[in-house]
Amino acid sequence: MESTQRARCPSKDTILILVPDEPKEEVISSLQKHYPGVKIHWRSVKAPLSVDDIPQEIWDTATIVWGFEIPKDAFLPKLRFVQLNSAGADHWAKNRHYQDPNILFCTSNGAHPPQIAEWVIGSWLSHQHQFRKYSSYMQQGYWEPLFQSSFQDSWGLRMGILGYGAIGRQCANLARALGMDVIAYTARERLTPESRKDDSYCVPGTGDPDGLLPSRWFHGTTKEDLNNFLDQDLDILVICLPLTASNRNMISRQQFEVLAKKKTFVSNVARGGHVNTDDLVEALEKGMIRGAAVDVTDPEPLPKDHPLWKAPNLLITPHISWVSTNHWSRVLAIFEHNLAVLNHGGEFVNRVNKELHY
Amino acid sequence: MESTQRARCPSKDTILILVPDEPKEEVISSLQKHYPGVKIHWRSVKAPLSVDDIPQEIWDTATIVWGFEIPKDAFLPKLRFVQLNSAGADHWAKNRHYQDPNILFCTSNGAHPPQIAEWVIGSWLSHQHQFRKYSSYMQQGYWEPLFQSSFQDSWGLRMGILGYGAIGRQCANLARALGMDVIAYTARERLTPESRKDDSYCVPGTGDPDGLLPSRWFHGTTKEDLNNFLDQDLDILVICLPLTASNRNMISRQQFEVLAKKKTFVSNVARGGHVNTDDLVEALEKGMIRGAAVDVTDPEPLPKDHPLWKAPNLLITPHISWVSTNHWSRVLAIFEHNLAVLNHGGEFVNRVNKELHY
Repeated sequence: MESTQRARCPSKDTILILVPDEPKEEVISSLQKHYPGVKIHWRSVKAPLSVDDIPQEIWDTATIVWGFEIPKDAFLPKLRFVQLNSAGADHWAKNRHYQDPNILFCTSNGAHPPQIAEWVIGSWLSHQHQFRKYSSYMQQGYWEPLFQSSFQDSWGLRMGILGYGAIGRQCANLARALGMDVIAYTARERLTPESRKDDSYCVPGTGDPDGLLPSRWFHGTTKEDLNNFLDQDLDILVICLPLTASNRNMISRQQFEVLAKKKTFVSNVARGGHVNTDDLVEALEKGMIRGAAVDVTDPEPLPKDHPLWKAPNLLITPHISWVSTNHWSRVLAIFEHNLAVLNHGGEFVNRVNKELHY
Repeated sequence: MESTQRARCPSKDTILILVPDEPKEEVISSLQKHYPGVKIHWRSVKAPLSVDDIPQEIWDTATIVWGFEIPKDAFLPKLRFVQLNSAGADHWAKNRHYQDPNILFCTSNGAHPPQIAEWVIGSWLSHQHQFRKYSSYMQQGYWEPLFQSSFQDSWGLRMGILGYGAIGRQCANLARALGMDVIAYTARERLTPESRKDDSYCVPGTGDPDGLLPSRWFHGTTKEDLNNFLDQDLDILVICLPLTASNRNMISRQQFEVLAKKKTFVSNVARGGHVNTDDLVEALEKGMIRGAAVDVTDPEPLPKDHPLWKAPNLLITPHISWVSTNHWSRVLAIFEHNLAVLNHGGEFVNRVNKELHY
């Protein structure tokens, strides 16, 4: 992200902020300082909104929205810019404003990698070091004698990353610090150094913005391409690519059969729809994979009686890996950058490609 | 560790190997190839030995021991070198062979940091991302609604490392990949770049052998020095220094009172004796610290009815953080290096200072 001019710039914009947090005085005063005249409507939104939750006048006048989504039937005649709280835009695909080529969307891609990569590495290490077993021993007051358990540390193991975007790059950064080999899989070929770069927002000191960490790059869009990647003796597979029409259920029985060779641990922090849930349950129950950690499921929320809850060697969390006390300050940094570009010109960060939805 | 000459060298040594593993053909043949004539006795040892477990003739002829310990009353008249499996030598302090200045001891310092640092970071991330809570929700089939929990990621947080040796340096390496600030505390002052280096064995690609990662260095041996370090707004304190006569119970009630300011998470991978157990229980029960993870306790094993088992926000593991399927190959690398030095000259790695016991 290039640094942008932050001069005062009179503004006639009306910004509608729809985020879970209560209004933050420092955010409002920062925006008002840089854009004198700007109108700001901040609604704390913790569940899907209906049109009637916001006065019609605000829908009629809002030029900018910062949020996760708007009601399906909301019509914002003056809308020109949407700053999303999410890294993907697939949930907007059918929205009329999204389909309007004159309305610019930017994601918050890059605000999530530190916490999501921590979730990936933390759940991996918890599995490898058997913390859940020792927690249960604590309840019994049981001190296991030495050499009853063996542990494999990560040094020299291999992480395969499906989708080498901002999240995958911070996973790679942590994996390399553990001494792991990292290989990456992307849809399109990345032969040149330039093509390996990622221009999404990057929290300072994290990630791999220049794409220097993978020892090998794989690419493709066919099952054969994918299966070949999965066959590279992976100890852990991290799924962190956007959900598109063509990659739903990309990890199904056939892929688990490939992963069974090395009993690859599967970590999904993308969307539940990437993995066939029944096949995941089978792979865990049959011990085809050593374990899994999923922050996303299909369906979501996972029903109380779903068999996935009881599958062995699995951690499920309820789509919270992106949540962080640092989240809003990171999205605000992206939003403020894009507002400056909107007013002064320059390069937007995280501009959505409306065909790819990210 | 400098690379050492590995020419064939006829040997009259008798090596007694006392490790938990069954004899490994590749280790024996490697030693026999480099030292033709060498005698090797390999005993798989998973519990303390008595003198009678080994024929007297072996005690009488062994010149080299590779192991964790020998029976207290064993007498090895020809002993000249001991390669320890442990990073410290405090458990040998009263042994007559250890007290003999002609018998050289080397530790396996540097064989443990990858797995122990994984344990430290894994248990820290498990705490911060509340994995234990979500494991219990899985048993109930409960999908927690969004925004019921908040999470603090590690970016910008501070890790304080008590004892900046091989283990602390790999903890620092991982912490920096997470975007944390790292500060170090050592007994003696480390003002010059040279003094900040660590010459113990280092697994390639890990650690911080040149001591470049800490943003600030603290030092001292008094309570005031220690308390001043603990008062530096630490989010996590990692205890990874050898146990000596002077640092027993170094973390007691007064120190927990200092740590209460930031509710510092306490991670102990050194010795249980560094921490006053009653005071740790109190600090956890009163919420003075946000949590703790201890791989070592005082006493050890921890009795079934000890109150520490039930203290909140705590992970206890039974002194296993050093165990790794990679452990013996790393110690073997150190042992083979030292054997080569013994035969060809050069610099030993991890030579024990018998006053410091490490």
